[in-house]
Amino acid sequence: MHLNQPPSFLNRYYEDISKNMENAFRGHDLQIYDYLKYFLGWTDINGNRANNYTGKILRSSLCLLTSDSLNGNLKISLKAAVALEFVHNFSLIHDDIEDQDKFRRHRLSLWAIWGIPSAIVSGNALLTLGNLEIGNLTNEKLPLKMINKTQKLLTFSYLKMMEGQFLDIQYESKINISIPEYLRMIHLKTSTLLECSIILGVLTSNFNDDSLKSKFSSLGKILGNIFQIRDDVLGIWGTDDTGKPIGSDIKKKKKSLPIIHGLTHQNSSISKKIHDFLSQEFISDSEVNHVIDILNEAGSKTYCQELIKEYWSEGEKIIDDLNISNSFKIDFQELGTYLSGRHS
Amino acid sequence: MHLNQPPSFLNRYYEDISKNMENAFRGHDLQIYDYLKYFLGWTDINGNRANNYTGKILRSSLCLLTSDSLNGNLKISLKAAVALEFVHNFSLIHDDIEDQDKFRRHRLSLWAIWGIPSAIVSGNALLTLGNLEIGNLTNEKLPLKMINKTQKLLTFSYLKMMEGQFLDIQYESKINISIPEYLRMIHLKTSTLLECSIILGVLTSNFNDDSLKSKFSSLGKILGNIFQIRDDVLGIWGTDDTGKPIGSDIKKKKKSLPIIHGLTHQNSSISKKIHDFLSQEFISDSEVNHVIDILNEAGSKTYCQELIKEYWSEGEKIIDDLNISNSFKIDFQELGTYLSGRHS
Repeated sequence: MHLNQPPSFLNRYYEDISKNMENAFRGHDLQIYDYLKYFLGWTDINGNRANNYTGKILRSSLCLLTSDSLNGNLKISLKAAVALEFVHNFSLIHDDIEDQDKFRRHRLSLWAIWGIPSAIVSGNALLTLGNLEIGNLTNEKLPLKMINKTQKLLTFSYLKMMEGQFLDIQYESKINISIPEYLRMIHLKTSTLLECSIILGVLTSNFNDDSLKSKFSSLGKILGNIFQIRDDVLGIWGTDDTGKPIGSDIKKKKKSLPIIHGLTHQNSSISKKIHDFLSQEFISDSEVNHVIDILNEAGSKTYCQELIKEYWSEGEKIIDDLNISNSFKIDFQELGTYLSGRHS
Repeated sequence: MHLNQPPSFLNRYYEDISKNMENAFRGHDLQIYDYLKYFLGWTDINGNRANNYTGKILRSSLCLLTSDSLNGNLKISLKAAVALEFVHNFSLIHDDIEDQDKFRRHRLSLWAIWGIPSAIVSGNALLTLGNLEIGNLTNEKLPLKMINKTQKLLTFSYLKMMEGQFLDIQYESKINISIPEYLRMIHLKTSTLLECSIILGVLTSNFNDDSLKSKFSSLGKILGNIFQIRDDVLGIWGTDDTGKPIGSDIKKKKKSLPIIHGLTHQNSSISKKIHDFLSQEFISDSEVNHVIDILNEAGSKTYCQELIKEYWSEGEKIIDDLNISNSFKIDFQELGTYLSGRHS
């Protein structure tokens, strides 16, 4: 497989996820839902049908892949999958406001079109649709106790996600963030929901075995860390194709891993230069390029990719050890390879 | 009872609610929770212990009062009560951002101290604590089916609340809002959560009788409408510390009931004048006073209070018809009287 090609299982589940997401909007007809339909890519700014869902469906497919690998009932797991996709998109809508990002997936973000107040409330409504969707598991053939477990886990996981987002915001105005502090933040902000996606696949398959859950949990965390560190790399070295301008995280003073690596570099002339730039109130485009040059000199990108490699060698061991059929192992492996090197 | 005195049952439940709200924060120790503790009044801006909870505890006490009147187990209903209080405060934190209100309960609002991004995420975390709290009902002796019902109802109700908030925001930039459109908006924005508060009292008492629920639902809706219409009156004629009417809703161009009454007044010179002021981009303080004068001339306040009276006569009939002991009927009656004429 080519390093940057999305794993094939994303295609396998796409239609089911996309269709069920749209179904979840049935009966919700106020304008607030039109804003959300725009955000999800289904309509253009005027409400005319545009595309199918344009998200990566990473979290939802991970839930379905896990369920599938355990011989679970995909119809049940789809409720959880849709809920995950809604929770994730809720976080993006609010992130765009918080980061003042005017674009998302090559299109204007909600607040950039309709203002902050409407965008905040629309985001909240999408989170709530996610809650309703996982609440609807009751219609399916899963023990009530298990249903309750899935709801609790999802709620707990997005609380952790919010804690991580909060830390991420706090870190913007702090200079001295250590790598352990960073890892704690991304664990909360990103990895918890990916871990939750996998575990919801386990629970909705009516499995509740602790050893199995623990292996899948570790795998989810690792995939989350890899996803976020690669995201950090793209936040500085990503091309315009990602929809993000190059070096965007530098402008925002995000304490992403490459920046922390530069800030804590043993060569004090490197760390001092980056420190000085980040202490400025405003960082110009040419200064952003200068910071990228320094990070290149510091080997910060290589550092990040080496860390990803380390995580992934651990992930591969876990996959080997899972009691699932080989074809699913290959799916998980393809995902790890893809996330390690994706370009968007 | 004096017209403006809060009903005594609020005192009766205050300590339980307040204590259980604080307990729900146990184990949540990041700074994000410090912001929330400040918002809830427990600490000052520096994190030092300040007060007890400063909210009205209207929704939570209504849940407990209903449960109490049905001989319910208050320990169980308290989980729902705390969840309601959190959901309500979440909505206030976001409302303050959306309305650019720098003060809440005579203190700086969250965003005014710590910025919009942190305030958005803190609000989200409080909503989630509410979800977790009602999810914790599983620890108690209520059938799982009923627990699932309570969770679904709460989720559904705050989705309606969000829809109402969204409409409220949309209405600010529209002039021609009819009274039925207004009533639909406040039903969603305010009455649904009050109705939910009462029904959660019914469900957590393990009652699921449709006729009983329907009576309590109607009462909840009526109390919600009265609460909001009185809120609208206070949004114009409410006085500040100096005793001056604040007229704050006029500045924000909120389509509150007095303003809609003025805008749709049969005397076209009245409606035209208000229309002209609200069509301005910015309304000065002296113009706000002028609008208040016109609304006084139009009898808009009287109109609102008459509508409240009508609702409440309906509410009193429902209370009469409830199969609960007399002392609880008096509690509900005191609440209606208070909400009809409260000054803050």
